[in-house]
Amino acid sequence: MDILSIIERKKNREALSDEEIRFFVRGAADGSIPDYQAAALLMAVRLNGMTDEETFALTDAMVASGVTMDLGTLPNTVDKHSTGGVSDATTFVVVPLLACLGFTVAKLSGRGLGFTGGTLDKLECFDGYRTELTIAEFLRIAAQTGASIAGATSELAPADKRLYALRDVTGTVDSLPLIASSVMSKKLAAGAQTIVLDVKYGDGAFMKTPEDAARLAALMVRLGREAGRRTGALVTGMNQPLGEYVGGNLECRGAIEVLKGRRNDLYEVSRRIAMRACELNERPVSGADIDRLIDDGTAYRKFEEIVAAHGGRIPALEPAPVRTKILAETAGFVGSVRTRAIGEVNLRIGGGRTALGGEIDHAVGIELCVRLGDRVEPGTTLAVLHTNRPDDEAARALRACYSIAESPVTVPPVITNVL
Amino acid sequence: MDILSIIERKKNREALSDEEIRFFVRGAADGSIPDYQAAALLMAVRLNGMTDEETFALTDAMVASGVTMDLGTLPNTVDKHSTGGVSDATTFVVVPLLACLGFTVAKLSGRGLGFTGGTLDKLECFDGYRTELTIAEFLRIAAQTGASIAGATSELAPADKRLYALRDVTGTVDSLPLIASSVMSKKLAAGAQTIVLDVKYGDGAFMKTPEDAARLAALMVRLGREAGRRTGALVTGMNQPLGEYVGGNLECRGAIEVLKGRRNDLYEVSRRIAMRACELNERPVSGADIDRLIDDGTAYRKFEEIVAAHGGRIPALEPAPVRTKILAETAGFVGSVRTRAIGEVNLRIGGGRTALGGEIDHAVGIELCVRLGDRVEPGTTLAVLHTNRPDDEAARALRACYSIAESPVTVPPVITNVL
Repeated sequence: MDILSIIERKKNREALSDEEIRFFVRGAADGSIPDYQAAALLMAVRLNGMTDEETFALTDAMVASGVTMDLGTLPNTVDKHSTGGVSDATTFVVVPLLACLGFTVAKLSGRGLGFTGGTLDKLECFDGYRTELTIAEFLRIAAQTGASIAGATSELAPADKRLYALRDVTGTVDSLPLIASSVMSKKLAAGAQTIVLDVKYGDGAFMKTPEDAARLAALMVRLGREAGRRTGALVTGMNQPLGEYVGGNLECRGAIEVLKGRRNDLYEVSRRIAMRACELNERPVSGADIDRLIDDGTAYRKFEEIVAAHGGRIPALEPAPVRTKILAETAGFVGSVRTRAIGEVNLRIGGGRTALGGEIDHAVGIELCVRLGDRVEPGTTLAVLHTNRPDDEAARALRACYSIAESPVTVPPVITNVL
Repeated sequence: MDILSIIERKKNREALSDEEIRFFVRGAADGSIPDYQAAALLMAVRLNGMTDEETFALTDAMVASGVTMDLGTLPNTVDKHSTGGVSDATTFVVVPLLACLGFTVAKLSGRGLGFTGGTLDKLECFDGYRTELTIAEFLRIAAQTGASIAGATSELAPADKRLYALRDVTGTVDSLPLIASSVMSKKLAAGAQTIVLDVKYGDGAFMKTPEDAARLAALMVRLGREAGRRTGALVTGMNQPLGEYVGGNLECRGAIEVLKGRRNDLYEVSRRIAMRACELNERPVSGADIDRLIDDGTAYRKFEEIVAAHGGRIPALEPAPVRTKILAETAGFVGSVRTRAIGEVNLRIGGGRTALGGEIDHAVGIELCVRLGDRVEPGTTLAVLHTNRPDDEAARALRACYSIAESPVTVPPVITNVL
């Protein structure tokens, strides 16, 4: 078997065999296949696609390239994954809900890069929270409290890490089979029996349309089920930030507000993810059941317990001191929100990282005061920028993220599809 | 400008600008663009194609990456290029004909690799022939005799050399715009005012069908004309070896037989190339005019003169001593000739090179005694293998190159198309 004939076959739109895909993944991971040949094959896959069988084999091979977590000692293990967006703190709402519902969440999370935040970064806002756990600590906390959220080890699907780095610099990120196998190889290696995916679409997401997001979601669900996991997915909108805050402390505050009873899109998506996990395990719960866990304080207390078990505590979560209001200039309706650009404003003021290993300022951020379709008058506050010093350029950029329409606009529900 | 956005654009089927293509070629040549990014772009070009404008720009940029020959002191400069095949010694027939017709042929040739031979290798059969000339010597010989054939300098289109090496290991050789720009960048850099291309199709050629070969020929003709050169092309068959011999000494002998009056497909193609060069310069000659140059000895004397001017002489051109006849076993008609496999038999017996820099044995080779469609009886000699010691395996392989059909077969003319 040689890589050149594998490239030739994919170039000619043929389906690769399991053996060929394993040969490629192994060679890409151990460096025996040079980057230029891996890059040529990735571009051929990006342009000619892969069958489901090929995508299963690719996912399997990436799982097999590293260690897999054995969660066999934990009951009802569940994992949740978001494809990433702006103001997406669902993990902090979903995890305590799932723990309250009798699941064990043993969740490995990553850091953010670019305009999207990462769960691992946000966990740093909870003073003292330890994300670097040994496997024994991770399993013990999950068993005791029903949930542990810790940093992902680089030993899970290491082939994916190498392939992702190469995709990132060769224009081959936007391929359904490559995205799906990348996400699912890490989820499968992480070991949970139930997996619920939140696949975003829109301006602030990787997939631009609900149709593309649904295709990706369906493929990932097939991959999960093929591997014997109870797998479901939501397709959700990212044409506006999901929650009402962007930035470390502010997003954590937003999640806590939801856990204490605030009802918004962030809650809606979190609740549905929890319900989907229950459905997949054939013990469905209603939205009202979830509301009750919130309203009687159970979910918030569980969250405090989980944070405490990791050595953390929930602080005041104060934003940076300089507040700059962004006001509507005309009357009308919020017509569009440049969601990705909002994430980029947060990046610019120091709330994200532009390179691996960069520092994040958790105090800076943005309060989002209106939702798509809201009626506004001249002077209505659209958003509030929180920075350490006045930043006119960021304020102008944030202002430019909002368009006010003259007539009412129709806003689709945040959840488009449940798989 | 950055390479990633160029890759993205080509991936999305957009046409690249001249500036983007120059940026790529410069970066690929000087190494500032890593191989993995160049490989991804080459695969995207292979799968999504290039417009004529992009291909012109690519060719231009590769010409500009190195030196260009200034043939301005020579009258009526002409060059001829074959896309490569088996038993293709047309250069040795065409060059003296063109010199006799008032052209100056200043021709830079390359070495062979794999199953096809290279002109530079065959020149070594003429004892003492010097292929490594200074530019001054090259121009002086061309001016004096009407022709010089010497080794190509690596300073012509060096970007093509680097890109070709990368294409060879990334499955991106078989792309019309990449092939056309690779060939034409070297021809344009070599400086001749008239260029005639011989584009082969069939089992022993790179292009498999006359239609594909015609498309490649048309594209190369457009590239040449766009660059202001009088450019034409023939599309010719390579479903059997062109001449009657394969191997260094034997192919040279075959060319000399043609220069001395033998009429066969090698002559037919050579004559038409010479006529095409005249047509492109608006002073057409007839086939009979060319025949006369052969029949009165003018062409052969010119060939002797050219060889002598390079320090060479025409030796006896003896083949290796062990002759193994390949005989027909049944009666019928020569139905197909596995042309590439014949080239590979020659490679196996030492008549070609499998790696850059490998030695070639010019004495070994194959006499081809029948043509497609010829009637054969049991015992008719199909071919004769010339080796230094008996080689049963090569003989068996050569036997397997011929299929005998029961009923007569239709053989298309060797020249399919003239552009």
